[in-house]
Amino acid sequence: MKFKQKDVLGLEGLSPQEINLILDTAEPMKEIMTRDIKKVPTLRGHSVITLFYEPSTRTRTSFELAAKYLGADTSSVTVAASSVKKGESLRDTARTLEAMAADVIIIRHSAAGAPHQLARWVSARVINAGDGAHEHPTQALLDMYTIREKKGGLQGLKVAILGDISHSRVARSNIWGLTKMGAQVRVVGPTTLMPPEIDKLGVEVYHHWEEGLRDVDVINVLRIQLERQKKGLFPSIREYTQLYGLDQKKLQAAKSDVLVLHPGPVNRGIEISPDVQDGPHAAINEQVTNGVAVRMALLYLLMARGEQDEVPA
Amino acid sequence: MKFKQKDVLGLEGLSPQEINLILDTAEPMKEIMTRDIKKVPTLRGHSVITLFYEPSTRTRTSFELAAKYLGADTSSVTVAASSVKKGESLRDTARTLEAMAADVIIIRHSAAGAPHQLARWVSARVINAGDGAHEHPTQALLDMYTIREKKGGLQGLKVAILGDISHSRVARSNIWGLTKMGAQVRVVGPTTLMPPEIDKLGVEVYHHWEEGLRDVDVINVLRIQLERQKKGLFPSIREYTQLYGLDQKKLQAAKSDVLVLHPGPVNRGIEISPDVQDGPHAAINEQVTNGVAVRMALLYLLMARGEQDEVPA
Amino acid sequence: MKFKQKDVLGLEGLSPQEINLILDTAEPMKEIMTRDIKKVPTLRGHSVITLFYEPSTRTRTSFELAAKYLGADTSSVTVAASSVKKGESLRDTARTLEAMAADVIIIRHSAAGAPHQLARWVSARVINAGDGAHEHPTQALLDMYTIREKKGGLQGLKVAILGDISHSRVARSNIWGLTKMGAQVRVVGPTTLMPPEIDKLGVEVYHHWEEGLRDVDVINVLRIQLERQKKGLFPSIREYTQLYGLDQKKLQAAKSDVLVLHPGPVNRGIEISPDVQDGPHAAINEQVTNGVAVRMALLYLLMARGEQDEVPA
Repeated sequence: MKFKQKDVLGLEGLSPQEINLILDTAEPMKEIMTRDIKKVPTLRGHSVITLFYEPSTRTRTSFELAAKYLGADTSSVTVAASSVKKGESLRDTARTLEAMAADVIIIRHSAAGAPHQLARWVSARVINAGDGAHEHPTQALLDMYTIREKKGGLQGLKVAILGDISHSRVARSNIWGLTKMGAQVRVVGPTTLMPPEIDKLGVEVYHHWEEGLRDVDVINVLRIQLERQKKGLFPSIREYTQLYGLDQKKLQAAKSDVLVLHPGPVNRGIEISPDVQDGPHAAINEQVTNGVAVRMALLYLLMARGEQDEVPA
Repeated sequence: MKFKQKDVLGLEGLSPQEINLILDTAEPMKEIMTRDIKKVPTLRGHSVITLFYEPSTRTRTSFELAAKYLGADTSSVTVAASSVKKGESLRDTARTLEAMAADVIIIRHSAAGAPHQLARWVSARVINAGDGAHEHPTQALLDMYTIREKKGGLQGLKVAILGDISHSRVARSNIWGLTKMGAQVRVVGPTTLMPPEIDKLGVEVYHHWEEGLRDVDVINVLRIQLERQKKGLFPSIREYTQLYGLDQKKLQAAKSDVLVLHPGPVNRGIEISPDVQDGPHAAINEQVTNGVAVRMALLYLLMARGEQDEVPA
Repeated sequence: MKFKQKDVLGLEGLSPQEINLILDTAEPMKEIMTRDIKKVPTLRGHSVITLFYEPSTRTRTSFELAAKYLGADTSSVTVAASSVKKGESLRDTARTLEAMAADVIIIRHSAAGAPHQLARWVSARVINAGDGAHEHPTQALLDMYTIREKKGGLQGLKVAILGDISHSRVARSNIWGLTKMGAQVRVVGPTTLMPPEIDKLGVEVYHHWEEGLRDVDVINVLRIQLERQKKGLFPSIREYTQLYGLDQKKLQAAKSDVLVLHPGPVNRGIEISPDVQDGPHAAINEQVTNGVAVRMALLYLLMARGEQDEVPA
């Protein structure tokens, strides 16, 4: 099977077959990462540009290393929020990067839909590295890769997404991806942190952890945006931790072999207790490794398609 | 012919033969950019350092990619304006970079002449990426490359440079380069935005677009520095756009096949109207591509000279 | 001899034999830097990440180039002081970088001991690029390399370290390294800028330059932190320069072939006079070159150990 998408903008637009192809391709990529010489020449002479309108060392570095492990050249463009107003339009920036012969543009932007616009304007491949509260497809793909690796598959699993669903692009991408792959997805969080369209997303909604986490195979804990909480969207951080912070007690509600995920960086002791974060159920560092592997897979599928049929061995 | 300059500091110091050599060398470089594998090993093991005292993602990225497409290593040093005062002198910084075995230092600085001083202090090659309101030679070279490609040559062409001539290094480098190559250069703009020495530059001066743009082959539209206009150097931005912003009406004064250039980034709708910017006369994105090609040519000529005679095929 | 350390955290923890091995290994590395093609494939496919919690263009660039000259991939993570508080813990950051398959993490941090903690948390190799006022081992190694190159050895030399000993990690690392290698180390500076534990460090303490610099072979001038002086730790910068700034007059106290070092960047005319800085005794630019060579040596010893026995030729 060939990957026929020009861009990877979100999981809403991918088929289960395409998601499987990405996850399958990530397996040999992860193997490359474990070698002494972590570099294949597959994408030599291809250029990957990261275009970040929001700072994110973690995601940017992951993409950069993924590109380098495949032999591509990378260049990094960070646009400070302050300069967006007086600066050139996204469209002009995109066309400029394309005119410099960028093969792939990886964009993070605070506006939902910005990567989709970009993808229409350029013939370079575009990967969404997070757009507003809309999608963060590579995060969801690495979450699914981790679940598949640990649980042997996705079909039929009970997965709880815990926290601030409303403002989370990680939640949205996970919901779209996991439901497509046949998992039973439930969201757990306070009413004030549920998006208005939650009823249309094909998930069960819980407001209390006792029911929400009961017998689940996976808990994906969302990061709390402390700044947002301070603005009073939720009574207090302390109360949030009490009601929704994942600790040993709440973990008992889930299956005994429950897998705990978190997209990082963790606010230690707030959305997840230290003993759970560092305990045997969590796979947070493996998620990071899998993130590089999944991004390598996407770069490979978007750029090497048509040029070769075999995944590099 | 060999390129005998140690540095590229401005077009004032280059001969027509040297300019032609650069533009000729940029042609195969542009061809490299269109390949699937955009990388030649010509400058492998050479190191290129960008030293920017003014932020410029666009120019820095263009140089970085140019170096990478030729196989060189790059490193980027950005010096915030605030740290210049308390920091080390330009001279010490330059010698430090040279001591790290930099082969080429690419400098942007707010002080006119800074690259020329740098070039005297180090044996590394120096390229001026913009010094105050003085010169921006790679911009002028890419403008000339674009004109030559579109018009078949430079000799005898009527070229209008439109806007704030006074504060523009792009204007100065274009004037020096174009007049050397036999073009008839005119500048068009308000009296308040003409430099005092304009009479000595060998150009015709116009204050009204009706005469200034009449029958020209090329219009090079300068970027307006909005911050500067706000300080009252010109009545108002709205008035500027009315009198000097390039729109369809003003375009009629020029030849029917007029070529429109802009160094970017564009202030949409201010110095150029959207329909002209995105219309058939404009070559703004091609300028960006040509900018990488011209910079590849300079890096090649400065670094590979003596080592090989053939341009990489 | 093989280098058996997992990390390079400070000179306090290295044996004289290990220091000699590093300095010996730096010699062929420096030779690589002088070639037209400054690149060997020794560390191809290895990834080096710089993690800087304090800004330092100079040291970061030196490490980056060292890694690139050896063929490694580099990625740079800068953490602004402001984001440390709200951000993830050092431990989580370290594990994240390791999970991305970093082979070496180079850390600069304002807290003494941070690199040592990091080294316990990750199996990646760690190099301390400066931790608080504690150690800056690569600076001391390049200082020792420079002395050895100029003086033929370290044993028995009289070395004066001049300035603010108390707040200087450069001083501490030099003291540990030089005394281990058999040099006679003395510190020269005002009482207020001596650390409380100075009596336990095996050095002679002088407060007046006439005695402190008498007959020394080497003077290592420390950088003055102007911000600190402004806070009143010392009467005034002017008085400091008068009493401890190295000028031609004070230089007369030393041996006639005295070697003058400074870690850079220099506050011109404050801790060292311009004629001494640019004069025949100073080796400040050579220190920079040697810094890259020493860092190449460390990367080579930490990463290539076990894989090959020969230094690349």
